[in-house]
Order: sequence, then C-alpha cells, then structure tokens
Amino acid sequence: MKISELSRRSGVSVATIKYYLREDVLPAGEPTSSNQASYGDGHLRRLRLIRALIDIGGLSLARVRDALAATENDELPLHDAFGAVMLGLDDPGMTVADDDTVGEVRDWLADRNWTIAPDAPATRRLAELIGILRTFGLPVTAESFSAAADTAEATAIDEVRYAHDQPDRIASVEMMLIGTVVYERAMAMVRRLALEAASARIDDGTGIDDPARG
Amino acid sequence: MKISELSRRSGVSVATIKYYLREDVLPAGEPTSSNQASYGDGHLRRLRLIRALIDIGGLSLARVRDALAATENDELPLHDAFGAVMLGLDDPGMTVADDDTVGEVRDWLADRNWTIAPDAPATRRLAELIGILRTFGLPVTAESFSAAADTAEATAIDEVRYAHDQPDRIASVEMMLIGTVVYERAMAMVRRLALEAASARIDDGTGIDDPARG
Repeated sequence: MKISELSRRSGVSVATIKYYLREDVLPAGEPTSSNQASYGDGHLRRLRLIRALIDIGGLSLARVRDALAATENDELPLHDAFGAVMLGLDDPGMTVADDDTVGEVRDWLADRNWTIAPDAPATRRLAELIGILRTFGLPVTAESFSAAADTAEATAIDEVRYAHDQPDRIASVEMMLIGTVVYERAMAMVRRLALEAASARIDDGTGIDDPARG
Repeated sequence: MKISELSRRSGVSVATIKYYLREDVLPAGEPTSSNQASYGDGHLRRLRLIRALIDIGGLSLARVRDALAATENDELPLHDAFGAVMLGLDDPGMTVADDDTVGEVRDWLADRNWTIAPDAPATRRLAELIGILRTFGLPVTAESFSAAADTAEATAIDEVRYAHDQPDRIASVEMMLIGTVVYERAMAMVRRLALEAASARIDDGTGIDDPARG
C-alpha cells in the first residue's frame, strides 16, 4: 500500500510516519519509484505497536527504539529477545531500591522457582515500589504480591507461547511488547474498577464507614 | 520544619518545592516570619505523593492537581472522593473505545455485581485496551480478565478500608492515590517477572520452542 493508505488505516499522519521512518523505529518500505515506496501489513502492525507503546505505555520514542531493538537481531534466542524487551521497557533513571528490599524480592522469586535474570529491571523496580509503599506506612512485603503472582503465573505460559507462535521473529517480539504493555494497563484498569466497587460497598454515600458492612 | 529540612527529608529540591507551592499542589506552610514558613509531616507526605504520581504514575503536574482536587472538598463523601481521584488519574484525551466493547465490559461488571459509576473512566479505558489487543489478533474478551478481577476483588476491600482508616480525609484521599498508582505499577512488575519466568521455562536458550515442555 502507499503511505497515504498506511496513514488512513493506522490513523497516524503521513508526517508522523515519515518521522518514524527517519528515526528508524519503522522499517523502510519497498521502493516503487525514486520518491515512493510500498508498505505492507507488517508496517501497519508496527505503527499500531508504536502508538500503543507511546499512548498506553507512556514510552518516549527513544525508549520505543530500545524496546524494538530486540526485533533487529535474528540470532538472538527468543528468551534473550524477551529480556531485551524488558530492559527496553524499563525507565533506567528511576530505581532507588535499597539492597535489603531487593534481596527480599529475590528470595521471594527463588521461593516461587521463577528463573529471573540477575539484571532484570522488574526485580529492582518492585523492590523500589515496596519501599515507597512502606514510606506511606503500608505493611507491605514481597509476600504481599503472592496472590497477584499466582494469577500472573497461571496465564504467563499461554501468553509467552502465543508470542512464540507468531509467524516470524519480528511478530514474536512485537507480541511480547503488546502483551506486556497493553495487558498490564488493562490489569490496572481492572484493579481500579475493583477498588471502586469495594468503595461503593464500604461507603454508601453517607461518608460514614461502617466496619460491619462490606 | 524549615523548607530546607523538608527538601532534605523528601529528596525534592527547594526550587521544586517552591514551584509546587506556587502551583497549588502543595499547601502553604505556617508563616513564621515575613519570608519564612514552617512545614509539617503532612507536607512531607504530600511531597512524596506528588513525586510518586509523577515518577511512578507518569502524571503531569496538571493531572496531579486534578487527582488531588478531591482532598480539598471536606463535604465530599469518601466514595465520591474516590470517584474524583479516579477521574483525575485518567488521561481524558485517549479513549477511542467502541460502544459494543464498552457494553461488553459493562455487562461483565454487572455480572460480577460491581457497582461502578456510569462515567467511570476505567470502564471505557478497559474497553479501549481490549479493542487494541483485538487489532493484534489476540482472542480477548472482558471475560478474559475474570481471574485478575477475582484477585483484585479479594484485596480491594482491605485496601479501601485502609484508606478510610487514615486519621483525616486528606490522608484518606492520599492513601487512595498511592494505593492505586503505586500498587498497579507493582502488579505490572509482578506480571513482567511472571512472563520472564514463563519465557525461561518455554525457551531454554536454544531459541527452539518445544510445545511439549513448559
């Protein structure tokens, strides 16, 4: 398809598409003349992915490029590509976790028999978030996330296999990204709805909390 | 405490604290002279909250102000304050959910007996995310989130009650914000770790996926 059709079908303006081409987050099309190129379904899928990473995941274009870097190395085993995706998604400047809490999270992961790379950013990040919750007086430990971990574990194998089963490596990495960024946002919305429903049960509009209800 | 001590204890620079005071997201201190004021633990807590909303939640200062607006109305029942917090946390420009999918999410919430305000942004947002997952060929329905909803429901009552049990209304609203933004980020990290562990089980580093394993 021409760039105008790619724009129409993706909802991304031609100017923005050209910007993504220059910034190397969207692969070049097949040249059809000296100043035109043809684009395929892979370009459409990639554009939707870039928009999801920016709009839903809140990533900058530089971090989109980092997260997509794993699509470019055909030699990388998929599990390593997955690790690269997770590194790319992380915001490296923000982790201020203390070593004790990182150790607590690592011990919890080991107890679950989860094989996690030593440099996996999510480990330090979870420790950091536990630390923040504690500064607000919340009685949180790594163990507090065990029920959430059980739920995540129950679907993770199917999700990763679905990514593996894509027709090519680029589609596999793209599916890992979508599965991570869009699903985690959806889970956050489910949590917000659960909190609102709980709030409605506890507080019936009088503003008086009755501990016997709920 | 003086502004210098508030800065030291919160890790937020004096210039940034003054900016937050001007922007009305941090309440003024108690004046001690014509150009000095004294700040309390409430200011420290508020500063930590603002930083968490910006650094963890990715909110702009304008959206922090929206999310904090519910702390300012003493007459608002806590459940309504909770709704205001959820409205403030939402990014209003982005929802492109189609009506069928919104209806599907509403039916699913009704089946769960969750009481959700008709204008709750998380309903449309979840529908939007389901739509995005479907454009990538993922066989997702509202029902797909039932296990996550069960997990969220199991802890939501305790979380909301913990917010209610704070010593004053401002602390209650602040706790709702922290509970929402920081916990949902922590859940996302738990999901990333679960995906990495699943990826390690499926792909042992050879890059060859063996469906008999896992």
